[in-house]
Amino acid sequence: MFTVNAYAAPSATGELVPTTIERRAVGPHDVLIEIKYAGICHSDIHTVRGDWGPQSYPLAPGHEIAGIVTEVGSAVTRHAIGDRVGVGCMVNSCGECANCQAGEEQYCLAGNTGTYGAVDRDGTITQGGYSAHVVVTENFVVRIPEGLGLDVAAPLLCAGITTYSPLRHWGAGPGKKVAVVGLGGLGHMAVKIAHAMGAEVTVLSQSLKKQEDGLRLGADHYYATSDENTFTDLAGSFDLIINTVSAFIDINAFLQLLRLDGALVNVGAPAEPLPVQVFSLILGRRSFAGSAIGGIRETQEMLDFCAEHGIGAEIDVIPASKINEAYERVLASDVRYRFVIDAATI
Amino acid sequence: MFTVNAYAAPSATGELVPTTIERRAVGPHDVLIEIKYAGICHSDIHTVRGDWGPQSYPLAPGHEIAGIVTEVGSAVTRHAIGDRVGVGCMVNSCGECANCQAGEEQYCLAGNTGTYGAVDRDGTITQGGYSAHVVVTENFVVRIPEGLGLDVAAPLLCAGITTYSPLRHWGAGPGKKVAVVGLGGLGHMAVKIAHAMGAEVTVLSQSLKKQEDGLRLGADHYYATSDENTFTDLAGSFDLIINTVSAFIDINAFLQLLRLDGALVNVGAPAEPLPVQVFSLILGRRSFAGSAIGGIRETQEMLDFCAEHGIGAEIDVIPASKINEAYERVLASDVRYRFVIDAATI
Repeated sequence: MFTVNAYAAPSATGELVPTTIERRAVGPHDVLIEIKYAGICHSDIHTVRGDWGPQSYPLAPGHEIAGIVTEVGSAVTRHAIGDRVGVGCMVNSCGECANCQAGEEQYCLAGNTGTYGAVDRDGTITQGGYSAHVVVTENFVVRIPEGLGLDVAAPLLCAGITTYSPLRHWGAGPGKKVAVVGLGGLGHMAVKIAHAMGAEVTVLSQSLKKQEDGLRLGADHYYATSDENTFTDLAGSFDLIINTVSAFIDINAFLQLLRLDGALVNVGAPAEPLPVQVFSLILGRRSFAGSAIGGIRETQEMLDFCAEHGIGAEIDVIPASKINEAYERVLASDVRYRFVIDAATI
Repeated sequence: MFTVNAYAAPSATGELVPTTIERRAVGPHDVLIEIKYAGICHSDIHTVRGDWGPQSYPLAPGHEIAGIVTEVGSAVTRHAIGDRVGVGCMVNSCGECANCQAGEEQYCLAGNTGTYGAVDRDGTITQGGYSAHVVVTENFVVRIPEGLGLDVAAPLLCAGITTYSPLRHWGAGPGKKVAVVGLGGLGHMAVKIAHAMGAEVTVLSQSLKKQEDGLRLGADHYYATSDENTFTDLAGSFDLIINTVSAFIDINAFLQLLRLDGALVNVGAPAEPLPVQVFSLILGRRSFAGSAIGGIRETQEMLDFCAEHGIGAEIDVIPASKINEAYERVLASDVRYRFVIDAATI
């Protein structure tokens, strides 16, 4: 065990403060990473504040981690000292269930081990990326290709893969019309990636406030959902809708926008259930689906894809001392489009 | 125009009575069919009673029609006098939209023309199969293969295709685990067809009352949903769940029974919306979908498949004079598994 600097929440109601946390000694299959950047994901805030259940404190969140390998265990083969690497939302899984065997560790039947606030395989509570170093088993560490800045790569580890995976799974590409609901941290990545995949991309945002951004990021069309005409104009239009909004929406209105065999995929989960009128599904053989991050193999594929297409997140780099302020701005949707902590300031 | 015998509802509240209705003269592309059998579908009852909106009366329902061709129009090429044929839930569509062009007339973007109670292309209101004859454009008439009795074939035109289509679309077959929710008119067809496709079939019924039937029809397993253990025992089990129940169910409990990438497909639409907890979808990349009957080409494929596998509906043939009594029994779920009207008694 050794001690590293971190920013952690002392309780569900306290602000994050500089502190130290323990990391396990580097085991045979472990990689020690010097963290360079850590993205701030909306779910960090929900988790540390206990919105999704009680936590163990102090808790350092952060699951969008980019850094450099500084030590490797004796049995490590996938990574070497000096490698540019990333860690996302999970740091382990059982490795044996059907889903793990299929490379879909995010759906591990025993439950994957979250990067922070989860019970690790050794019984300790995991601590996330708002820290100077992290020790992770090599199979859950991915390579960040040259040409992709570590700062703009960090948010790809959650926001990137969470949108890439359903876009790939549901076949976004040339000839496909894809809508992205919400232009925030996840939404702006969905637009960039869907555009790079060759799909025709439409943003469905509450207002036209971010229209210029949306078009610049790769959207072909931009509509305000506050305008009722949007729902009549676009009825039956889309092959795929990626809903990045975690709040309640009128799901049936959005389902009507799907063409035959279209799918609406939620990547965020609102606390309240969404009432589905089944006729919305039957008329057009539509699907309402969900998707969680992506597997490790697919996360690597996503990073390679992003490097190839010059895609990084749109970021606002902050020192660790501004984390609490950044949280307030994330909650107010006042960020374009991802805060990234410069880990040198932790 | 000519007049044919029929059983029709005089109003939303009146019982069905013997009467006569008008059929259009046989046009160049039309086929005149002497109806031999007409199935009683639950939706006949909903429609004539105005549960799904106001109707024009008198109304003869019936969209599970099997009979013999007795006259063909001058331009008809697909059918000949003496042919054994069927007509299902629709008798026309625009023929020009993307969905019609794809052979998915059931999803016609202009709306397909229902077999009864719909405004036909000529402005008249369609009348269904509880009658002695019907005139239908040849493209919406399918061939009933030799070896398939017209009586057991009639229900295939709605109950058969409504279950065959999603089973085919979502890949039921060897190595796939399929659950069928509800063992009624639709459910018993789903069991027979899924079994014939080679899937491992489980019936999820409220009680074990029909267990013996279910296993005889082809189910490998039978569970009661009134037993809470069912939901823990079968968690994460199925690739596909066909929900034939049109009433409210706890949809999240059933979604939990799907394995990775599984789909729950509703073929019935409850009046109330079903509240979906999005986490049920996200954890396992599950889909909640809907499906409506099938296209004409697929309906023919289904009939050929059923003939090849010796599949007909389990029926209870009744004279037309017992229609009202049969309606009460359908509403009380007291039918195993489809009433079929002997049209010679109309």
